[in-house]
Amino acid sequence: MQALFLSLLVPVAFASSSFLEPRIFSLVSRGTNLDGSLPLYQNPNASIEDRVADLLPRMSLQEKVAQIIQGDIDGWMNTTDPLDNTLVFNQSGLEDMMSTKAGSIWGGYAMPYEKFVFALNVGQKYLMENTTLGIPAMFQSEGLHGFTNNGTIFPSPIGLAASFNPELLSSVANIIATEAEGLGLSQIFAPVLDMSRELRWGRVEENFGEDPFLTGEMGLAYVTGLQDGTRRNVTADGPGGIRKRMASTCKHFTAYGSPMAGLNTAPVVGSERDLRTIYLPAFQRACLESLAIMTAYSAYDSVPLVANKHILTDILRDEWQYPYWVTTDAGAVDLLISQHKTCDTRECAAKAVIENGLSGEMGGGSYTYLTLPDQVAAGTVNESYIDETVKAMLRTKFTLGLFESPYPYSDYLSTIRTPESREVLLQMEEEAIVLLENRDNVLPLSNNIGSIALIGPQVNRVTFGDYVFFNASLNGITPLAGFQEFLSNQSSSTKVNFAQGCELWSNDQSGFDEAVSVAQQSDVAIVMVGTWSLDQTLLWTPGTNATTGEHVDLSSLSLVGAQFPLVEAIVNTGKPTVVVFVSGKPVSEPWIQAHASAVIQQFYPGELGGLALPEIIFGAVNPSGKLPVSFPRSVGTTPDFYNYLNGMRPIDAGMITDNDTLIFGHQYVLNSPVPIWSFGHGLSYTTFNYTDLSLNPASIGISDNFNVTVIVHNTGSVDGKEVVQVYLSDVVSSVVTPVQRLVGFQKIDLPAGSSQTVSIEVDSSQLALWNLNDQWAVEPGEFMVTIGTSDEIFAQATLTVTA
Amino acid sequence: MQALFLSLLVPVAFASSSFLEPRIFSLVSRGTNLDGSLPLYQNPNASIEDRVADLLPRMSLQEKVAQIIQGDIDGWMNTTDPLDNTLVFNQSGLEDMMSTKAGSIWGGYAMPYEKFVFALNVGQKYLMENTTLGIPAMFQSEGLHGFTNNGTIFPSPIGLAASFNPELLSSVANIIATEAEGLGLSQIFAPVLDMSRELRWGRVEENFGEDPFLTGEMGLAYVTGLQDGTRRNVTADGPGGIRKRMASTCKHFTAYGSPMAGLNTAPVVGSERDLRTIYLPAFQRACLESLAIMTAYSAYDSVPLVANKHILTDILRDEWQYPYWVTTDAGAVDLLISQHKTCDTRECAAKAVIENGLSGEMGGGSYTYLTLPDQVAAGTVNESYIDETVKAMLRTKFTLGLFESPYPYSDYLSTIRTPESREVLLQMEEEAIVLLENRDNVLPLSNNIGSIALIGPQVNRVTFGDYVFFNASLNGITPLAGFQEFLSNQSSSTKVNFAQGCELWSNDQSGFDEAVSVAQQSDVAIVMVGTWSLDQTLLWTPGTNATTGEHVDLSSLSLVGAQFPLVEAIVNTGKPTVVVFVSGKPVSEPWIQAHASAVIQQFYPGELGGLALPEIIFGAVNPSGKLPVSFPRSVGTTPDFYNYLNGMRPIDAGMITDNDTLIFGHQYVLNSPVPIWSFGHGLSYTTFNYTDLSLNPASIGISDNFNVTVIVHNTGSVDGKEVVQVYLSDVVSSVVTPVQRLVGFQKIDLPAGSSQTVSIEVDSSQLALWNLNDQWAVEPGEFMVTIGTSDEIFAQATLTVTA
Repeated sequence: MQALFLSLLVPVAFASSSFLEPRIFSLVSRGTNLDGSLPLYQNPNASIEDRVADLLPRMSLQEKVAQIIQGDIDGWMNTTDPLDNTLVFNQSGLEDMMSTKAGSIWGGYAMPYEKFVFALNVGQKYLMENTTLGIPAMFQSEGLHGFTNNGTIFPSPIGLAASFNPELLSSVANIIATEAEGLGLSQIFAPVLDMSRELRWGRVEENFGEDPFLTGEMGLAYVTGLQDGTRRNVTADGPGGIRKRMASTCKHFTAYGSPMAGLNTAPVVGSERDLRTIYLPAFQRACLESLAIMTAYSAYDSVPLVANKHILTDILRDEWQYPYWVTTDAGAVDLLISQHKTCDTRECAAKAVIENGLSGEMGGGSYTYLTLPDQVAAGTVNESYIDETVKAMLRTKFTLGLFESPYPYSDYLSTIRTPESREVLLQMEEEAIVLLENRDNVLPLSNNIGSIALIGPQVNRVTFGDYVFFNASLNGITPLAGFQEFLSNQSSSTKVNFAQGCELWSNDQSGFDEAVSVAQQSDVAIVMVGTWSLDQTLLWTPGTNATTGEHVDLSSLSLVGAQFPLVEAIVNTGKPTVVVFVSGKPVSEPWIQAHASAVIQQFYPGELGGLALPEIIFGAVNPSGKLPVSFPRSVGTTPDFYNYLNGMRPIDAGMITDNDTLIFGHQYVLNSPVPIWSFGHGLSYTTFNYTDLSLNPASIGISDNFNVTVIVHNTGSVDGKEVVQVYLSDVVSSVVTPVQRLVGFQKIDLPAGSSQTVSIEVDSSQLALWNLNDQWAVEPGEFMVTIGTSDEIFAQATLTVTA
Repeated sequence: MQALFLSLLVPVAFASSSFLEPRIFSLVSRGTNLDGSLPLYQNPNASIEDRVADLLPRMSLQEKVAQIIQGDIDGWMNTTDPLDNTLVFNQSGLEDMMSTKAGSIWGGYAMPYEKFVFALNVGQKYLMENTTLGIPAMFQSEGLHGFTNNGTIFPSPIGLAASFNPELLSSVANIIATEAEGLGLSQIFAPVLDMSRELRWGRVEENFGEDPFLTGEMGLAYVTGLQDGTRRNVTADGPGGIRKRMASTCKHFTAYGSPMAGLNTAPVVGSERDLRTIYLPAFQRACLESLAIMTAYSAYDSVPLVANKHILTDILRDEWQYPYWVTTDAGAVDLLISQHKTCDTRECAAKAVIENGLSGEMGGGSYTYLTLPDQVAAGTVNESYIDETVKAMLRTKFTLGLFESPYPYSDYLSTIRTPESREVLLQMEEEAIVLLENRDNVLPLSNNIGSIALIGPQVNRVTFGDYVFFNASLNGITPLAGFQEFLSNQSSSTKVNFAQGCELWSNDQSGFDEAVSVAQQSDVAIVMVGTWSLDQTLLWTPGTNATTGEHVDLSSLSLVGAQFPLVEAIVNTGKPTVVVFVSGKPVSEPWIQAHASAVIQQFYPGELGGLALPEIIFGAVNPSGKLPVSFPRSVGTTPDFYNYLNGMRPIDAGMITDNDTLIFGHQYVLNSPVPIWSFGHGLSYTTFNYTDLSLNPASIGISDNFNVTVIVHNTGSVDGKEVVQVYLSDVVSSVVTPVQRLVGFQKIDLPAGSSQTVSIEVDSSQLALWNLNDQWAVEPGEFMVTIGTSDEIFAQATLTVTA
């Protein structure tokens, strides 16, 4: 394919000069001015727009197209063996790659750092020194919860969101950026801002939960944490414009998280109103300064998102004035042919994406963009779309200061896995854990307890979510090891009895007898069950198994295999039983809610999750996580997000009792649409009280912000962190609105017995609905402001909005 | 409320004359012309529009408003005891009713015919003779599958659809009209054209299945069958315009069948494209000549359907030019206050519905329309909307010839339950049964078989769907009695052994031993299980139970209680086991598909369903029903409609084997998105072959129709009916389209060994998609035309469309 491309390019480059705008450069010396001086685009103090305007006309059509097709370091490096550390490269492969796919380079490979840095230096040096214009590439990797070249692994995004702590998440993202930057990376494909409204979908763990507001706040924290700062050798914000040190990549733009039937990449049903009120807000909040955005695989309202002019051009570029790089996901352009059936040729696909999406083409497909030079020559594609896309890429690079700082740093090792980053990691592990039930305050366990049984298939393994590198779990501590380390550090004499009981992936109950016996011998049983995913290599390897992760979609949210019977067997021993769900999504097991002594949710943790768990269970750390997603009673009661539209949830619940008696209701006949635990829920070992709620002012105009002020009291006997949550309901509205929406939250740390006044500003835009004229509007009238969780009201006040 | 209203009305009636259009009538003699002659509106030979134009200005505002609020015969009759036959009425109640709610009168009560006819005569006579203008009321009842005043009960609509026989359905509807007409009814609230795309919803049984085309064809068959003809004393179509004898009421307009989470009346998510391509087509096909339409309870895209200007005014009235009566559902206007939260006063609700919906208000709520006179006086509601709504009502009445034929017929008994109607009923029962599996041709059973076991909770009961009157099931024959009658008629010596095994609504397995024993004693076991509903009285009575029907929503599609274990126990006896699902919706039991010898689907039958079943099982009748709805493998794999959008259904299915081994896949991890049986599936006791498929022409312009011609051969040894199904796929399209769509079908009756050429015309509009400019468009290119079912291809050809 590349040979064919090169043979075509020479005439095309000339032919293209007849299109659109006159070329002002000399083909002989495009990289320098005719007088030998440094061209404007090389001046770091020139404005970004001036630099873009200077550089673009110097580029040939071939160079432009190469700028917007993703390259890959496998073009010049052998990437097959993750342990190989041979520092050689393929020169002709390098030249081929850089002549056709040179704007961004995929580098998300597991390999020794030394080889990785070598590869990046070789590639970047070639671009800087052996090409006419010297345009550096962005080297890219994944990084939803740690970058995927053996960086520190943090909890999966659903767990990060459970912390409800944007500042802490910013610190996490900052560490990810620091670790990646030293190795020469400049673009990270994160955060994911999809809404977890379809829980069967395998990628729920990659999101920040079901709520647009929480997702937007956590997304913004991630983007700023990752991007803020300046690369070495780059002057900070100044006459040249703002600078960022790493390009965040908000994805998947947009509505990707609600595929029909939960099937990965399936079409999403929705209206303009759904788009505006559910799917776009988090992106609009978090991504306007993100240096990159990745489009989604799926179609929204029957229009493939890679070629969705309304969303990618009308809204993103025109309405939002988004100036930076937009890319497709891997292989996504070809899906127009193979999946969406809106094209039958690569030419059609390339044209549809460049003209509607103003975006680049990622690898993983057939490189349809290689058809663009011919299409420009033939007049079927207007070069102006290519120009606009290249300009977006150049803006991102100039903002990164990439022309001034394109290379890895020699001291990269000093910025990876530092003691400081370990502290942030541990705090995030702790704050990501959610205490769901705690009957009779069975938790925390006393340090003096004689023995604990650790039972279940999640005890002696490190269960990471997807988007981690091959063998990443080797850097993690198992819960079994974590308990032992914790107790040892406490000089505790508590005995740990372990029995796995069963595998995650089997119905084999042959280990139950031992597990029951272990429980009976112990003072308390801790049963760890849940879902599991795999690293990015194994997840796509035939013959492996997993229950969550990309392209791993469930038809049931119940525990798989022998896990539920194991829990049942242990609970039925009569021993106090703490059930820990380690999972990437809600587990639907209402019996466990009803019968376990305590229930803890640990969304897929990071490397120190196994240590944070005993800290919580023994009360060294007071749990403070809150659910970013509601837990349905069964897959058949979904969707059960808390911000459902008025009129959705009639409740006349039936049930099947423990002794299998059928008690008939209507919604549903034998079940309830009310989740087991709803969004925002999470217990503490202390108690909090709220008083003196006031709205300031309590009556506002339609474009006024207001403050929600309340005094929070820690009325218990231990220190604790609390997430103050503010919900809003539009009492009467011209269109149907959600019963409630989160519009503000703040996590505070409150010593036992103390009080704190918390004031949360709510922006007037949070009052708006998408009205019948397809516009945002704040409608005069009353709004109910609630302090509490989505299913518990602590304090309530009425806001009046006047015209 | 009525007293208050009356006290307000006098001043209002005068005040209103200052609004909009000058009154041209004399208050003294509105019912006759000033010269004493009969006014134009009383002339049956005048055009309907002339009659409307003549009558409307004669009406006071009070009379107009009374015309568009539904009245109720309970205003002057005691309706509490369905057995009471006292022929007395309440004069003041009658007068009150007719002064405020007189346009249409609800009469769907179970009572002796004599009393019912008395009630209608009293009411109508008062209107005709004691009111100034003498405008008769439409008397209304339900009639989805038999009118609900002790009319003949036919199979539930989902079963009617399974016949794939529109002509037969027309005959059914014709019988419903004939039975209802004699009693004085003039409006029937049917058909239901909601799409069964959300199977948890309780009302799936009321629909014609999941497909817009099938629903449109069956809907049209119902509407024409019900409406076509002329009431007695009414001149047929002539100078006065077309005439119909009964007003059909298409409902629920629209998109009502896809409530979120399957919860009745919950909001429906969707776009304009979904509206146009999924929800509106059946209404547009079936209802443009339906004399009434009923709006839906729910909101579509956050706009309540009762007040949806876009759908009810812009599309229905302006685009479609629909001229007839539109009404809300019972109590639906108040839902703007209590459910949708788009109003907080009755005034707001009434204004929203009349001005956006141009529709009347049904009872069951607070009669918000009683606020209209005041609102007109206050200038908050424009009387022109009331006028337009009244005009629609009058058009319906004039088309019915109601002014000429307002009364019940004295010989009404002669038109109810005639021998002829019984024949149609039995044929429909037979054609509604679908043979799903038939391993080793275990069916039909030989008439010489020694014994059969009839097992299960559906054997000795009559299971009707919802929308039947109190005690309707007493008119039905149980399967147990049906088998006995059938075998007796055949002079068969086959012994029938019966054991119920379990109740429908219990996990009690104490009857299993007897059931197993009965199976073991018999040559074949027939196990009847399924869902159940209740009549319109019991369905809403606290303390009753049901698993389907209005406001009875499921969170699981599996068999309830002990039913599945019963089937398993019988299958495990090793006896050939025929499982019969009697249900109102798909039952998700893949194990039964895999292990039963044969599976029969009998959607809720009518009065003779118990007789049709043995006819099918013993081969007296060859099954010919086809599924109007796909059967998912579990609730967690829904939606699984056959016409899913391209790209929706990646398949890498996992499974749990019979010995509980987990085989891991990805879509889904332990299940498959492919239904057990898909739309259009249905077996026969004979075999059919298709040859010589041709498209005529095979290349067409964008507005040309084409014919699909194929020769169908009955290659088996018994006569049989076959449904020739034509599916279409748009090979490449500008927006994502369904993988396939039914665009034509024809049911034929083919003797064994014979062949028939079938030619089905496909309208060019069936090729259209709703494009990016929000318009219907047929796009040039190729379309694949398939003869087969939705998951089996018998023959295929390519249609080329040129610009």
